[in-house]
Amino acid sequence: MTSETLFVTTAINSWKQIVAQIDKGLASSSDEDLQREVAPGKNRVYYLLGHLTAVHDLMLPVLRVGDRLYPELDEEFLTKPDRTFPESRTNAADLKRAWSTVNEKLNAAFANLSPQQWLERHNSISEDDFAKEPHRNRLSVLLSRTNHNSFHAGQMRLVSK
Amino acid sequence: MTSETLFVTTAINSWKQIVAQIDKGLASSSDEDLQREVAPGKNRVYYLLGHLTAVHDLMLPVLRVGDRLYPELDEEFLTKPDRTFPESRTNAADLKRAWSTVNEKLNAAFANLSPQQWLERHNSISEDDFAKEPHRNRLSVLLSRTNHNSFHAGQMRLVSK
Repeated sequence: MTSETLFVTTAINSWKQIVAQIDKGLASSSDEDLQREVAPGKNRVYYLLGHLTAVHDLMLPVLRVGDRLYPELDEEFLTKPDRTFPESRTNAADLKRAWSTVNEKLNAAFANLSPQQWLERHNSISEDDFAKEPHRNRLSVLLSRTNHNSFHAGQMRLVSK
Repeated sequence: MTSETLFVTTAINSWKQIVAQIDKGLASSSDEDLQREVAPGKNRVYYLLGHLTAVHDLMLPVLRVGDRLYPELDEEFLTKPDRTFPESRTNAADLKRAWSTVNEKLNAAFANLSPQQWLERHNSISEDDFAKEPHRNRLSVLLSRTNHNSFHAGQMRLVSK
Protein backbone atom coordinates (compact mmCIF):
# COMPACT_ATOMS: atom_id res chain seq x y z
CA MET A 1 0.00 0.00 0.00
CA THR A 2 1.44 3.40 -0.89
CA SER A 3 1.65 5.99 1.85
CA GLU A 4 -0.91 8.14 0.04
CA THR A 5 -3.38 5.27 0.03
CA LEU A 6 -2.66 4.73 3.70
CA PHE A 7 -3.48 8.36 4.51
CA VAL A 8 -6.80 8.08 2.73
CA THR A 9 -7.66 4.68 4.21
CA THR A 10 -6.98 5.97 7.71
CA ALA A 11 -9.32 8.92 7.17
CA ILE A 12 -12.08 6.75 5.69
CA ASN A 13 -11.72 4.29 8.59
CA SER A 14 -12.19 7.14 11.02
CA TRP A 15 -15.43 8.13 9.23
CA LYS A 16 -16.69 4.55 9.20
CA GLN A 17 -15.99 4.11 12.90
CA ILE A 18 -18.17 7.00 13.91
CA VAL A 19 -20.99 6.03 11.54
CA ALA A 20 -20.85 2.52 13.04
CA GLN A 21 -21.02 4.02 16.53
CA ILE A 22 -24.22 5.89 15.62
CA ASP A 23 -25.64 2.78 13.94
CA LYS A 24 -25.05 0.83 17.12
CA GLY A 25 -26.94 3.42 19.18
CA LEU A 26 -29.82 3.37 16.70
CA ALA A 27 -30.02 -0.42 16.73
CA SER A 28 -30.81 -0.34 20.43
CA SER A 29 -33.24 2.61 20.22
CA SER A 30 -37.01 2.26 19.95
CA ASP A 31 -39.07 4.81 18.04
CA GLU A 32 -39.97 6.34 21.42
CA ASP A 33 -36.27 6.66 22.27
CA LEU A 34 -35.78 8.63 19.07
CA GLN A 35 -38.36 11.13 20.26
CA ARG A 36 -36.40 11.91 23.43
CA GLU A 37 -34.50 15.19 23.76
CA VAL A 38 -30.76 14.84 24.32
CA ALA A 39 -31.13 17.37 27.16
CA PRO A 40 -34.14 19.37 28.36
CA GLY A 41 -35.28 21.76 25.63
CA LYS A 42 -32.59 20.54 23.19
CA ASN A 43 -32.88 18.60 19.94
CA ARG A 44 -34.53 15.21 19.81
CA VAL A 45 -32.45 12.22 18.67
CA TYR A 46 -34.90 11.97 15.77
CA TYR A 47 -34.03 15.50 14.64
CA LEU A 48 -30.28 14.86 14.95
CA LEU A 49 -30.60 11.70 12.88
CA GLY A 50 -32.46 13.62 10.19
CA HIS A 51 -29.93 16.43 10.42
CA LEU A 52 -26.99 14.08 9.94
CA THR A 53 -28.76 12.32 7.07
CA ALA A 54 -29.39 15.62 5.28
CA VAL A 55 -25.78 16.73 5.81
CA HIS A 56 -24.45 13.41 4.52
CA ASP A 57 -26.77 13.61 1.55
CA LEU A 58 -25.34 17.04 0.79
CA MET A 59 -21.85 15.55 0.77
CA LEU A 60 -22.67 13.82 -2.54
CA PRO A 61 -22.67 17.07 -4.57
CA VAL A 62 -20.09 18.78 -2.31
CA LEU A 63 -17.64 15.95 -2.99
CA ARG A 64 -18.81 15.86 -6.63
CA VAL A 65 -19.59 12.15 -6.47
CA GLY A 66 -23.30 12.14 -7.20
CA ASP A 67 -26.68 13.81 -6.97
CA ARG A 68 -28.62 14.16 -3.77
CA LEU A 69 -31.03 11.38 -2.77
CA TYR A 70 -33.13 13.14 -0.12
CA PRO A 71 -33.28 16.91 -0.65
CA GLU A 72 -36.79 16.82 0.86
CA LEU A 73 -35.21 16.34 4.31
CA ASP A 74 -33.63 19.79 4.33
CA GLU A 75 -36.60 21.82 5.45
CA GLU A 76 -37.45 19.62 8.43
CA PHE A 77 -33.90 18.79 9.55
CA LEU A 78 -31.47 21.38 8.23
CA THR A 79 -32.92 24.79 7.57
CA LYS A 80 -35.49 24.76 10.39
CA PRO A 81 -34.97 23.98 14.07
CA ASP A 82 -36.42 20.91 15.74
CA ARG A 83 -40.18 20.90 16.40
CA THR A 84 -40.91 23.48 13.72
CA PHE A 85 -43.55 21.16 12.29
CA PRO A 86 -46.18 19.83 14.71
CA GLU A 87 -46.32 16.56 12.75
CA SER A 88 -43.18 14.77 11.62
CA ARG A 89 -43.03 14.55 7.85
CA THR A 90 -40.79 11.50 7.90
CA ASN A 91 -41.45 8.42 9.97
CA ALA A 92 -38.66 6.80 11.95
CA ALA A 93 -38.34 3.71 9.73
CA ASP A 94 -38.01 5.83 6.57
CA LEU A 95 -35.49 8.08 8.27
CA LYS A 96 -33.34 5.17 9.40
CA ARG A 97 -33.51 3.75 5.88
CA ALA A 98 -32.44 7.08 4.35
CA TRP A 99 -29.54 7.29 6.82
CA SER A 100 -28.31 3.82 5.82
CA THR A 101 -28.80 4.37 2.10
CA VAL A 102 -26.93 7.66 1.94
CA ASN A 103 -24.05 6.23 3.96
CA GLU A 104 -23.83 3.23 1.64
CA LYS A 105 -23.75 5.52 -1.37
CA LEU A 106 -21.00 7.62 0.24
CA ASN A 107 -18.91 4.59 1.17
CA ALA A 108 -19.11 3.31 -2.40
CA ALA A 109 -18.03 6.71 -3.71
CA PHE A 110 -15.17 6.96 -1.19
CA ALA A 111 -13.81 3.61 -2.33
CA ASN A 112 -13.65 4.89 -5.91
CA LEU A 113 -11.67 8.05 -5.24
CA SER A 114 -7.91 7.88 -5.71
CA PRO A 115 -5.62 9.67 -3.23
CA GLN A 116 -5.08 12.42 -5.80
CA GLN A 117 -8.83 12.85 -6.22
CA TRP A 118 -9.18 13.28 -2.47
CA LEU A 119 -6.86 16.26 -2.78
CA GLU A 120 -8.94 17.87 -5.51
CA ARG A 121 -11.20 20.77 -4.67
CA HIS A 122 -14.61 20.27 -3.17
CA ASN A 123 -17.60 21.85 -4.84
CA SER A 124 -18.03 24.83 -2.50
CA ILE A 125 -14.83 26.52 -3.60
CA SER A 126 -14.00 28.01 -7.00
CA GLU A 127 -11.02 26.83 -9.01
CA ASP A 128 -9.35 30.22 -8.55
CA ASP A 129 -9.70 30.16 -4.78
CA PHE A 130 -8.62 26.54 -4.62
CA ALA A 131 -5.38 27.39 -6.39
CA LYS A 132 -4.57 29.62 -3.40
CA GLU A 133 -6.07 27.34 -0.73
CA PRO A 134 -5.25 23.73 -1.69
CA HIS A 135 -6.29 22.42 1.75
CA ARG A 136 -9.94 23.06 0.83
CA ASN A 137 -10.08 19.65 -0.78
CA ARG A 138 -12.41 16.66 -0.63
CA LEU A 139 -10.43 15.20 2.26
CA SER A 140 -11.09 18.29 4.38
CA VAL A 141 -14.83 17.77 3.77
CA LEU A 142 -14.56 14.16 4.90
CA LEU A 143 -12.71 15.11 8.09
CA SER A 144 -15.02 17.98 8.86
CA ARG A 145 -18.14 15.83 8.40
CA THR A 146 -16.55 13.09 10.52
CA ASN A 147 -16.19 15.65 13.30
CA HIS A 148 -19.75 16.82 12.75
CA ASN A 149 -20.89 13.23 13.13
CA SER A 150 -18.91 12.83 16.34
CA PHE A 151 -20.23 16.12 17.70
CA HIS A 152 -23.84 14.97 17.42
CA ALA A 153 -23.04 11.35 18.33
CA GLY A 154 -21.84 12.69 21.69
CA GLN A 155 -25.23 14.34 22.17
CA MET A 156 -27.20 11.31 21.03
CA ARG A 157 -25.24 9.15 23.46
CA LEU A 158 -26.71 11.11 26.39
CA VAL A 159 -30.06 9.40 25.92
CA SER A 160 -28.79 5.91 25.17
CA LYS A 161 -29.35 3.20 27.71
CA MET B 1 3.50 21.42 -1.00
CA THR B 2 3.69 17.66 -1.65
CA SER B 3 0.46 15.70 -1.55
CA GLU B 4 1.69 13.82 1.53
CA THR B 5 2.24 17.09 3.35
CA LEU B 6 -1.20 18.20 2.28
CA PHE B 7 -2.82 15.07 3.73
CA VAL B 8 -1.10 15.69 7.06
CA THR B 9 -1.85 19.42 7.11
CA THR B 10 -5.52 18.76 6.43
CA ALA B 11 -5.70 16.34 9.36
CA ILE B 12 -3.89 18.71 11.73
CA ASN B 13 -6.17 21.57 10.66
CA SER B 14 -9.17 19.43 11.51
CA TRP B 15 -7.74 18.82 15.00
CA LYS B 16 -6.99 22.51 15.51
CA GLN B 17 -10.48 23.52 14.46
CA ILE B 18 -12.15 21.43 17.10
CA VAL B 19 -9.73 22.48 19.84
CA ALA B 20 -10.43 26.11 18.87
CA GLN B 21 -14.16 25.42 19.08
CA ILE B 22 -13.78 24.13 22.64
CA ASP B 23 -11.53 27.08 23.52
CA LYS B 24 -14.21 29.45 22.31
CA GLY B 25 -16.81 27.80 24.53
CA LEU B 26 -14.47 27.96 27.53
CA ALA B 27 -13.70 31.64 26.95
CA SER B 28 -17.37 32.48 27.44
CA SER B 29 -17.86 30.13 30.44
CA SER B 30 -17.64 31.21 34.08
CA ASP B 31 -16.38 28.84 36.76
CA GLU B 32 -20.03 28.26 37.69
CA ASP B 33 -20.82 27.34 34.08
CA LEU B 34 -18.10 24.70 34.23
CA GLN B 35 -19.86 23.09 37.17
CA ARG B 36 -23.06 22.57 35.18
CA GLU B 37 -24.03 19.10 33.97
CA VAL B 38 -24.39 18.73 30.20
CA ALA B 39 -27.72 16.97 30.86
CA PRO B 40 -29.41 15.95 34.12
CA GLY B 41 -27.29 13.36 35.91
CA LYS B 42 -24.57 13.45 33.24
CA ASN B 43 -20.98 14.70 33.36
CA ARG B 44 -20.18 18.28 34.30
CA VAL B 45 -18.38 20.45 31.74
CA TYR B 46 -15.56 20.66 34.29
CA TYR B 47 -15.19 16.87 34.25
CA LEU B 48 -15.23 16.71 30.45
CA LEU B 49 -12.54 19.40 30.27
CA GLY B 50 -10.37 17.42 32.69
CA HIS B 51 -11.12 14.24 30.78
CA LEU B 52 -10.07 15.76 27.44
CA THR B 53 -6.95 17.25 29.03
CA ALA B 54 -5.92 13.87 30.45
CA VAL B 55 -6.56 12.13 27.12
CA HIS B 56 -4.55 14.77 25.24
CA ASP B 57 -1.75 14.48 27.78
CA LEU B 58 -1.69 10.73 27.13
CA MET B 59 -1.25 11.42 23.43
CA LEU B 60 2.32 12.57 24.12
CA PRO B 61 3.61 9.07 24.94
CA VAL B 62 1.12 7.33 22.60
CA LEU B 63 2.48 9.37 19.68
CA ARG B 64 6.00 8.96 21.07
CA VAL B 65 6.62 12.71 21.06
CA GLY B 66 7.23 13.37 24.75
CA ASP B 67 6.54 12.56 28.37
CA ARG B 68 3.27 13.29 30.09
CA LEU B 69 2.82 16.64 31.79
CA TYR B 70 -0.22 15.95 34.00
CA PRO B 71 -0.50 12.27 34.97
CA GLU B 72 -2.07 13.40 38.25
CA LEU B 73 -5.29 14.23 36.36
CA ASP B 74 -6.00 10.58 35.51
CA GLU B 75 -7.61 9.51 38.74
CA GLU B 76 -10.08 12.39 38.89
CA PHE B 77 -10.89 12.64 35.17
CA LEU B 78 -10.08 9.40 33.43
CA THR B 79 -10.21 6.30 35.60
CA LYS B 80 -13.04 7.46 37.87
CA PRO B 81 -16.45 8.84 36.92
CA ASP B 82 -17.47 12.42 37.59
CA ARG B 83 -18.22 13.37 41.23
CA THR B 84 -16.18 10.49 42.65
CA PHE B 85 -14.38 12.99 44.86
CA PRO B 86 -16.51 15.32 46.98
CA GLU B 87 -13.93 18.09 46.60
CA SER B 88 -12.34 18.89 43.25
CA ARG B 89 -8.62 18.32 43.36
CA THR B 90 -7.93 20.76 40.54
CA ASN B 91 -9.33 24.27 40.41
CA ALA B 92 -10.82 25.64 37.21
CA ALA B 93 -7.99 28.06 36.45
CA ASP B 94 -5.35 25.33 36.80
CA LEU B 95 -7.40 22.98 34.66
CA LYS B 96 -7.82 25.54 31.88
CA ARG B 97 -4.09 26.22 32.03
CA ALA B 98 -3.28 22.50 31.77
CA TRP B 99 -5.64 22.18 28.80
CA SER B 100 -3.89 25.02 26.95
CA THR B 101 -0.39 23.85 27.84
CA VAL B 102 -0.87 20.28 26.70
CA ASN B 103 -2.46 21.44 23.43
CA GLU B 104 0.47 23.79 22.78
CA LYS B 105 2.91 20.97 23.39
CA LEU B 106 0.98 18.70 21.03
CA ASN B 107 0.79 21.34 18.30
CA ALA B 108 4.55 21.88 18.51
CA ALA B 109 5.13 18.13 18.24
CA PHE B 110 2.70 17.80 15.30
CA ALA B 111 4.59 20.48 13.38
CA ASN B 112 7.82 18.49 13.77
CA LEU B 113 6.53 15.17 12.42
CA SER B 114 7.14 14.43 8.75
CA PRO B 115 4.42 12.72 6.69
CA GLN B 116 6.37 9.46 6.92
CA GLN B 117 6.56 9.78 10.70
CA TRP B 118 2.78 10.20 10.84
CA LEU B 119 2.53 6.78 9.20
CA GLU B 120 4.80 5.14 11.77
CA ARG B 121 3.29 3.02 14.50
CA HIS B 122 1.82 4.54 17.63
CA ASN B 123 3.03 3.35 20.99
CA SER B 124 0.10 1.07 21.85
CA ILE B 125 0.92 -1.46 19.14
CA SER B 126 3.93 -3.75 18.88
CA GLU B 127 6.24 -3.66 15.88
CA ASP B 128 5.12 -7.17 14.92
CA ASP B 129 1.44 -6.30 14.97
CA PHE B 130 2.08 -3.03 13.16
CA ALA B 131 3.72 -4.90 10.29
CA LYS B 132 0.36 -6.60 9.74
CA GLU B 133 -1.81 -3.55 10.53
CA PRO B 134 -0.09 -0.47 9.07
CA HIS B 135 -3.20 1.69 9.55
CA ARG B 136 -2.56 1.68 13.31
CA ASN B 137 -0.25 4.65 12.89
CA ARG B 138 0.17 8.03 14.54
CA LEU B 139 -2.29 9.57 12.09
CA SER B 140 -5.03 7.19 13.21
CA VAL B 141 -4.45 8.38 16.80
CA LEU B 142 -4.76 12.00 15.71
CA LEU B 143 -8.04 11.33 13.85
CA SER B 144 -9.46 9.24 16.65
CA ARG B 145 -8.66 11.89 19.27
CA THR B 146 -10.09 14.58 17.01
CA ASN B 147 -13.34 12.60 16.97
CA HIS B 148 -13.18 12.15 20.73
CA ASN B 149 -12.81 15.90 21.09
CA SER B 150 -15.80 16.51 18.83
CA PHE B 151 -17.87 13.93 20.68
CA HIS B 152 -17.46 15.74 24.00
CA ALA B 153 -17.54 19.20 22.42
CA GLY B 154 -21.07 18.35 21.26
CA GLN B 155 -22.02 17.58 24.86
CA MET B 156 -20.32 20.69 26.25
CA ARG B 157 -22.18 22.81 23.72
CA LEU B 158 -25.49 21.85 25.34
CA VAL B 159 -24.78 24.11 28.31
CA SER B 160 -23.25 27.03 26.40
CA LYS B 161 -25.16 30.27 26.22
